[in-house]
Amino acid sequence: MKENEALDKEVVLHDALLAALTSRDDTAICQIVEDTYPIDLGIVMEQFSDEEILYLCGQLKDEKVAEILEHAEENLQIRLMRILDNNRIISLLHFMSKDNIVDILGDMPVNSRKEIVKLMKFGERKIIQDLLGYAEDTAGGIMTTEYISVKQDLTVSQALQKIKEIGPKTEEINTIFVLNNVKQLVGTVALRDMLLAQDTTKLSEIMQDNVIAVEPEADQEEVAMLVSKYDLHVIPVVSKRRGLLGIITVDDIIDVIVEEHTEDMLRLGGVSKEENIDSSLMDSVRMRLPWLVINLLTAFLAAFTVSMFESTISRVVALAVAMPIVAGMGGNAGTQTLAIVVRSIALGEVKWGNNKRLVLKEIFLGVINGAATGAITGVLIYFMFGNVYLGWIIFAAMICNLVIAGFFGFLVPLILKAMHADPAVASSIFITTATDVFGFFIFLGFANVFIQYLL
Amino acid sequence: MKENEALDKEVVLHDALLAALTSRDDTAICQIVEDTYPIDLGIVMEQFSDEEILYLCGQLKDEKVAEILEHAEENLQIRLMRILDNNRIISLLHFMSKDNIVDILGDMPVNSRKEIVKLMKFGERKIIQDLLGYAEDTAGGIMTTEYISVKQDLTVSQALQKIKEIGPKTEEINTIFVLNNVKQLVGTVALRDMLLAQDTTKLSEIMQDNVIAVEPEADQEEVAMLVSKYDLHVIPVVSKRRGLLGIITVDDIIDVIVEEHTEDMLRLGGVSKEENIDSSLMDSVRMRLPWLVINLLTAFLAAFTVSMFESTISRVVALAVAMPIVAGMGGNAGTQTLAIVVRSIALGEVKWGNNKRLVLKEIFLGVINGAATGAITGVLIYFMFGNVYLGWIIFAAMICNLVIAGFFGFLVPLILKAMHADPAVASSIFITTATDVFGFFIFLGFANVFIQYLL
Repeated sequence: MKENEALDKEVVLHDALLAALTSRDDTAICQIVEDTYPIDLGIVMEQFSDEEILYLCGQLKDEKVAEILEHAEENLQIRLMRILDNNRIISLLHFMSKDNIVDILGDMPVNSRKEIVKLMKFGERKIIQDLLGYAEDTAGGIMTTEYISVKQDLTVSQALQKIKEIGPKTEEINTIFVLNNVKQLVGTVALRDMLLAQDTTKLSEIMQDNVIAVEPEADQEEVAMLVSKYDLHVIPVVSKRRGLLGIITVDDIIDVIVEEHTEDMLRLGGVSKEENIDSSLMDSVRMRLPWLVINLLTAFLAAFTVSMFESTISRVVALAVAMPIVAGMGGNAGTQTLAIVVRSIALGEVKWGNNKRLVLKEIFLGVINGAATGAITGVLIYFMFGNVYLGWIIFAAMICNLVIAGFFGFLVPLILKAMHADPAVASSIFITTATDVFGFFIFLGFANVFIQYLL
Repeated sequence: MKENEALDKEVVLHDALLAALTSRDDTAICQIVEDTYPIDLGIVMEQFSDEEILYLCGQLKDEKVAEILEHAEENLQIRLMRILDNNRIISLLHFMSKDNIVDILGDMPVNSRKEIVKLMKFGERKIIQDLLGYAEDTAGGIMTTEYISVKQDLTVSQALQKIKEIGPKTEEINTIFVLNNVKQLVGTVALRDMLLAQDTTKLSEIMQDNVIAVEPEADQEEVAMLVSKYDLHVIPVVSKRRGLLGIITVDDIIDVIVEEHTEDMLRLGGVSKEENIDSSLMDSVRMRLPWLVINLLTAFLAAFTVSMFESTISRVVALAVAMPIVAGMGGNAGTQTLAIVVRSIALGEVKWGNNKRLVLKEIFLGVINGAATGAITGVLIYFMFGNVYLGWIIFAAMICNLVIAGFFGFLVPLILKAMHADPAVASSIFITTATDVFGFFIFLGFANVFIQYLL
């Protein structure tokens, strides 16, 4: 499915559904809804008015509305929770998995959330309140409680019977969790292995022990890393004494990975993950200005460096023309080293210590790349200003600054990592500050020393 | 599991396994291998010598070695294929899924690959050769052929019987693919629904039609987007006439998402995805230098702009001190806008056309953030140089350059997208070039016009 096709489909669906809604053609509405994925309905509904959405939901069964609600974007979820009445909401929740309920409740104003929770049955309320207690970006915050757990001394046929009974109510059925007598998680059995085994086989004989599990406080990124590394389809969340608290399914893990990716890209660009294209002007100012001010301070550091050489520049103005080249190229080279090192840190290939060889490589890289770009720059500067010494000075300064770029590009992320800061985001400002300050200092410093050749 | 814990575990495992290998303690070796996940064994084996790896593999069953091979990093895969003899390799392949076999063969030298393929049985060879024909980053390149397909007029109990027969040989068993009489894919049935249905129910009654599928030429990123959007655990790959060619499972999709993420981050940093921390010095030069040279050309554009104002700078050297601030802040602000717009393009929120309101917002943002940072800069510059007019000029130039940053930050990615280039990567060089050139031009231009107040 190509992107434009997808877009066209969206428009067709939107128009058809709107026409059916406007003409109150309930048969057409039901037909369209029947033929469409809930997520696509949600996307189209975002553009409808509250009245249109209310009428549409009025025509649909709870199960369908619940599906749409579960798969909708946050904005539509908030709107639906606002315009539907509380009794309808309570009926919808019966068809939704606990992790999605908690997600949606977490986005509501505290008072409305409390009202809804109060209307729930006692058992359900207890579970939801427990889940709401975990931070949003931890294993506890994304886990659900719809799993099947069985005792280890059950036989395959007994377990299959239990699955048939409670299967319809659970999210995950392909992996069955096996508990011992004190309710600790001791293993998992894949549904496929149960189907292929003899009926009288005990679960403990076919289960996989040595289960990879996480505690509820684990960061969601760490959970995603485990799921990705071990190719898991579901990961259990356990207490310190290995009691089974919940499970996290692979579709939620994909959401985590995509979310973290988006967040990384935004933070690298110096914007908050809270901001989006529809943020109000003042919200955007509030979120972007602090980063600009931090950058301004580092820009002043560079400016102070330049100001130390005011008299040199006043004697050879060509220096003012050439100096941004040296500083800028250092920044580019430093960012290259940074990108490689950050990736290696993420993959666990580089650790603090024993990497003298790698620093040396970056330094040599700085020498070679600096010499290559410095030579080009030197020749061009010579032709621009007709002074061969200026060409040699920029050649030497470029090599020095690219060596500095490699050195800082390598060490800054490692130091930040050792200090438990995010190396991807914070590194770049330190590295560009270093390459700016040193770039200006070295180039203007060389010029100052050899000033008599430049006049 | 915390990162340090994971690292410690790795060291313990490495030492224990090495000790067992060195003392040829085969019982200990088997015990360690039994208790360890194949992926972890692979990580540790990377540090072993060829002899140690050969001895280890000699002690293990084909099934175990195949598991290690499937889950290993590319480097170890290449090494194993090189040091194991071809007959052993052929036995290993029986235990591996087709997509993994194709992955590994794809990384081998052409001659060795041909030798192995020649040794395969005819049926298998045909499948592998077909799969090798697809590009690595397409749906065809990552699909596997181990799925279960059944005819739509089968009953649930007939289908379950078939699953028990061929289940052990397939990768994906939780979703069964339903074909019509001319072998077109017409639906899917979840294993759970079969278990919960009556034995005599026809599959066509409980199957989900309207299946989301992709063609083999589809880009893997597009496939990942569909899987993520619709929360799929498996996606079928079909021919133009909807014949079932293969399936892609969710764990491979996670690999795709992580791979594309890494690639984006590296390309944003100006490095090739082929480079890693262990690349040789000359490989790193070869991969990084071209990007630096491109940046050098844009740096010269900025330098030429500065050179137009040489005489102005020679009369007021303070300009050389302040000018990098204006240019740099424009770059930062442009990158912020770029990050927001690129994310919105990826989510399909922004399209070419109908976004006058959004451009206007970025322009106003430029005015406000420019005024704020410009005011700080103006005051500091006034204190540095004691000239109030220089403060006002930098204030005005900052506003103009941040407006330009917002304008280009918004339009450049949209234009690149419309030209089918990757907006995330190529945009940044155009935007920084624009903010550098305009930043210098506006600031020095203002200074030139009001030169009598600056002397």
